[in-house]
Amino acid sequence: MAVNLPLPVASNLKPITGLELGYAQAGIRKTNRKDLLVMRLDHNATVAGVFTTNRFCAAPVQVCKAHLELARQTGTPIRALVINTGNANAGTGEAGLANANETCAALAALLGLTQQQVLPFSTGVILEPLPVDRVKAGLPQAIADLKTDNWLNAAEAIMTTDTQPKAASRTVSINGKTVSITGISKGAGMIKPNMATMLGYVATDAKVPQPILDHLVKQAADKSFNCITIDGDTSTNDSFILIASGAVDVNVNSIDSPEYKLLAEAVIGLSQELAQMIVRDGEGATKFITITVEEGATIEECRKIAYSIGHSPLVKTAFFASDPNLGRILAAIGYAGVDDLDVSRLNLYLDDVWVAKNGGRNPDYREEDGQRVMKQSEITIRVRLARGSASATVWTCDLSHDYVSINADYRS
Amino acid sequence: MAVNLPLPVASNLKPITGLELGYAQAGIRKTNRKDLLVMRLDHNATVAGVFTTNRFCAAPVQVCKAHLELARQTGTPIRALVINTGNANAGTGEAGLANANETCAALAALLGLTQQQVLPFSTGVILEPLPVDRVKAGLPQAIADLKTDNWLNAAEAIMTTDTQPKAASRTVSINGKTVSITGISKGAGMIKPNMATMLGYVATDAKVPQPILDHLVKQAADKSFNCITIDGDTSTNDSFILIASGAVDVNVNSIDSPEYKLLAEAVIGLSQELAQMIVRDGEGATKFITITVEEGATIEECRKIAYSIGHSPLVKTAFFASDPNLGRILAAIGYAGVDDLDVSRLNLYLDDVWVAKNGGRNPDYREEDGQRVMKQSEITIRVRLARGSASATVWTCDLSHDYVSINADYRS
Repeated sequence: MAVNLPLPVASNLKPITGLELGYAQAGIRKTNRKDLLVMRLDHNATVAGVFTTNRFCAAPVQVCKAHLELARQTGTPIRALVINTGNANAGTGEAGLANANETCAALAALLGLTQQQVLPFSTGVILEPLPVDRVKAGLPQAIADLKTDNWLNAAEAIMTTDTQPKAASRTVSINGKTVSITGISKGAGMIKPNMATMLGYVATDAKVPQPILDHLVKQAADKSFNCITIDGDTSTNDSFILIASGAVDVNVNSIDSPEYKLLAEAVIGLSQELAQMIVRDGEGATKFITITVEEGATIEECRKIAYSIGHSPLVKTAFFASDPNLGRILAAIGYAGVDDLDVSRLNLYLDDVWVAKNGGRNPDYREEDGQRVMKQSEITIRVRLARGSASATVWTCDLSHDYVSINADYRS
Repeated sequence: MAVNLPLPVASNLKPITGLELGYAQAGIRKTNRKDLLVMRLDHNATVAGVFTTNRFCAAPVQVCKAHLELARQTGTPIRALVINTGNANAGTGEAGLANANETCAALAALLGLTQQQVLPFSTGVILEPLPVDRVKAGLPQAIADLKTDNWLNAAEAIMTTDTQPKAASRTVSINGKTVSITGISKGAGMIKPNMATMLGYVATDAKVPQPILDHLVKQAADKSFNCITIDGDTSTNDSFILIASGAVDVNVNSIDSPEYKLLAEAVIGLSQELAQMIVRDGEGATKFITITVEEGATIEECRKIAYSIGHSPLVKTAFFASDPNLGRILAAIGYAGVDDLDVSRLNLYLDDVWVAKNGGRNPDYREEDGQRVMKQSEITIRVRLARGSASATVWTCDLSHDYVSINADYRS
């Protein structure tokens, strides 16, 4: 069902010097399945992350945050990541924390690191204990597999109900040197049926000091993974990690420098590509929908309205049906919570078709024009608020019978 | 598909002295269908209402608010209501306002009233002009039908895609006098596919001064129609109207009086019954779900969490599947936006089954117990926050294949 989602090709995924990847089939929930991934980083690498805001944040997320903070304070670098699928280790209390720590300790012992130099990630069933012995038993196999040109296997190893692996690469020339950026992501709902979570990992070989990487990871997340919605559910395990291996020094020493701007543009672009892949593989998705809200007083109100449209089951089912039932979009704008919105100045477009003019039906709008756009697999909804100059974009998909089937039938 | 929704019986619906109802088949969108309702009120009646917070509030809602405010200021009473289905008169701009006013003027002329003594309501397609001539042409037929024992026809006349009419009655004895309360409602989504809107009308023969009725309508709405959700979409036309015909004087002269408390309890109870009927007839509903959040610091945070659970497509599809995939409920609690929530103190129950204890899986919880409850058609989710003494309840339904079918296929 994926909407225009390209299958990644291993040879197109650029290795990142200073970063090796290895997978294992650890049998965590099912056998004969890549379900464990290890990443080993050079000692020059810097790592930054943003995590779910869900109060039920999973044990590995709590450990990740603590280890990243410790690395920031002590300067002792993060040197490895370990990611398992099949179990989210969320809603698991103290035992869950102990299991996440035990995973880190086991990998650290095998790689000659301290436990605090390892970041753990889990995705899968919530409320069930992590089978930590199977995770630990799989680590040697993953370590034996460590190599730099292993990104496609890595993308496959973090899949849960994704229909396709998600990976992409790009390069950018900074001061005459080529910087590579490669990333992988997973997720087919903001929370997967039971196999929870969106995960994103982007790595560059550029050298980026910690405070600058901390800034960049937030900037990239805000313009990519924080702009997508499938069903409005925020996972307990969502994580986005940015790694700079440090192999290529291109003087990214200030967020105001032209070097930073070039790197940031490439990282943000790749992150958007990876985030959009999650929407394209959204559970049951048949349409890829871009929602752009313009001329707002603030970015926040533009995002509120864009998400209100993007979360509306009625809007999403209308898109599934290719039915230009566009009053539903106006209704979703109206209940977005922008209290002083003057709808009599609002304009609505579907691609190039001007649907609503000054808050009412555009007299020139013809249903057949709306119908033509609705039949496309990629559609842009554009709202002009006539209140200011702020704007925001959100990417989403439609709501189909298959969404219900996937989520109702998954565990049965 | 309706869940335990009783079919109303005309003889059980108590007439309200001082209030007559009459319907017509006006052919507004389809022929041979009750689609126009007129209510005529005695000159002693008081009327109060609460309306959608949607910024795209429909033309009739704007006119209702203005006429109610005028009645409050001048003391000239509201004497009639007119309700059409088939067209929402929303997203229709100035022309929509003119059509709503023209409808009021036409009914006022026929009944010897001023235009401002009439309240108009519309429910149906958004973004299309109201066929005001058909509405006006149907008025004489509705007026000819006016009588007090006409509540079942009234309930049928305001239906859109409801599968059943929704009506109920009760009586309460106050100071030895019998007070009757009868109400009707419609809606099968917070917004119907295209045929938008939830409408509720509750009438009593008690005499209730305007300021007290204004208080009671808000109190009743907050505990009934404001506690339901089907898909989270808030219509452009939602209206809840409380009418006191004034025929029975039982000294409801202060909101602190015992008389008020008796009346309020009955009005709130009936309003809850009517509101729950909307959920029971929710589009595609197969389960009726009560979500109670207890031990909160504030009612607001309890409502936030209850709605977060009630809006989650993942929770709703799990209930459709009778799958005790209860980590989804924890995830929805976690992203409800209660920033300082300590999940390690939280307890979750499904009816009598203790699922999560202190934020993790209850060691005594057995999947077969969860499974047993999930198979029921009526289920209570109970969350204890251990933060205070506030509580809130929300009623919702599951998300089924039929929800998608109804909303995707309706206009096609």
